[in-house]
Amino acid sequence: MDSFTFEPIGIIRTPFTEPKGMPIQPSGAKGIPGTVKVAPEYSRGLKDVEGFSHLVLLYVFHLSQGYSLEVKPFLDDKLRGVFATRAPKRPNPIGFSIVRLVKVDANTLHIEDIDVVDGTPLLDIKPFVPDFDNRESEKIGWLSTKAVDAEMKKSDSRFT
Amino acid sequence: MDSFTFEPIGIIRTPFTEPKGMPIQPSGAKGIPGTVKVAPEYSRGLKDVEGFSHLVLLYVFHLSQGYSLEVKPFLDDKLRGVFATRAPKRPNPIGFSIVRLVKVDANTLHIEDIDVVDGTPLLDIKPFVPDFDNRESEKIGWLSTKAVDAEMKKSDSRFT
Repeated sequence: MDSFTFEPIGIIRTPFTEPKGMPIQPSGAKGIPGTVKVAPEYSRGLKDVEGFSHLVLLYVFHLSQGYSLEVKPFLDDKLRGVFATRAPKRPNPIGFSIVRLVKVDANTLHIEDIDVVDGTPLLDIKPFVPDFDNRESEKIGWLSTKAVDAEMKKSDSRFT
Repeated sequence: MDSFTFEPIGIIRTPFTEPKGMPIQPSGAKGIPGTVKVAPEYSRGLKDVEGFSHLVLLYVFHLSQGYSLEVKPFLDDKLRGVFATRAPKRPNPIGFSIVRLVKVDANTLHIEDIDVVDGTPLLDIKPFVPDFDNRESEKIGWLSTKAVDAEMKKSDSRFT
């Protein structure tokens, strides 16, 4: 199949200078402030964004090198299929985070609840819409006894 | 900034042979069946996926040509900044959908609630985890009077 090439539209700035010690999910990153710097040529695309309280950020796990089809997630001690995890070492290392939008200042978005490393290349911004994006999910597989721990758990260097 | 090249890990098969007439969001695609065909070399990454009732699919809006920084969404008659919309004509045309997983059959995932066109190139599969992914959002900007309509609304050809 054809491959696809994407150019970052901006960069995500956060207090996390390395993956080690980062929260592993936004639920553990409550209130952590960051900024999204959108390249000037895309500024016009930010019109109307300020009306939303939450945004979906798509970005590249740029520190992740190569991938594994089975990984040992931060929350488990067993090998799991990578597509059953949120680990960054994926065939296509694209991540998404839902963040709170605090303020728009020209092409800078001030955000909260951010769980990525400083300098993360941004691919896309979408408005979060509860009617589209929230789900009542009945089954969360191997995470069923672990998800509650995610809030406290910090990252280490295993996926860089 | 450096660009990033991604190779699809599979393909999404759906009943929608063209964008015209498609639901514009999974909330309007309830029960629509589809399959995700993962390339054999990635099969091992599907281990443990069957435990989850919902999955996040990341894919390429491959029919989308070029992009606009301001678009007229299906749900509105005003031009909106593209990053305040879910329109496919984006600088990096990556989409995400949350689908219901019905059954895993080797490297084929049987899914429901799918809102993409047949043949869509798949970039990633992630488990949907309510604790990580659900949000109570207070503000949905220009969509505040429109989101309720999304369920019924069908796509046309404007974004191909």
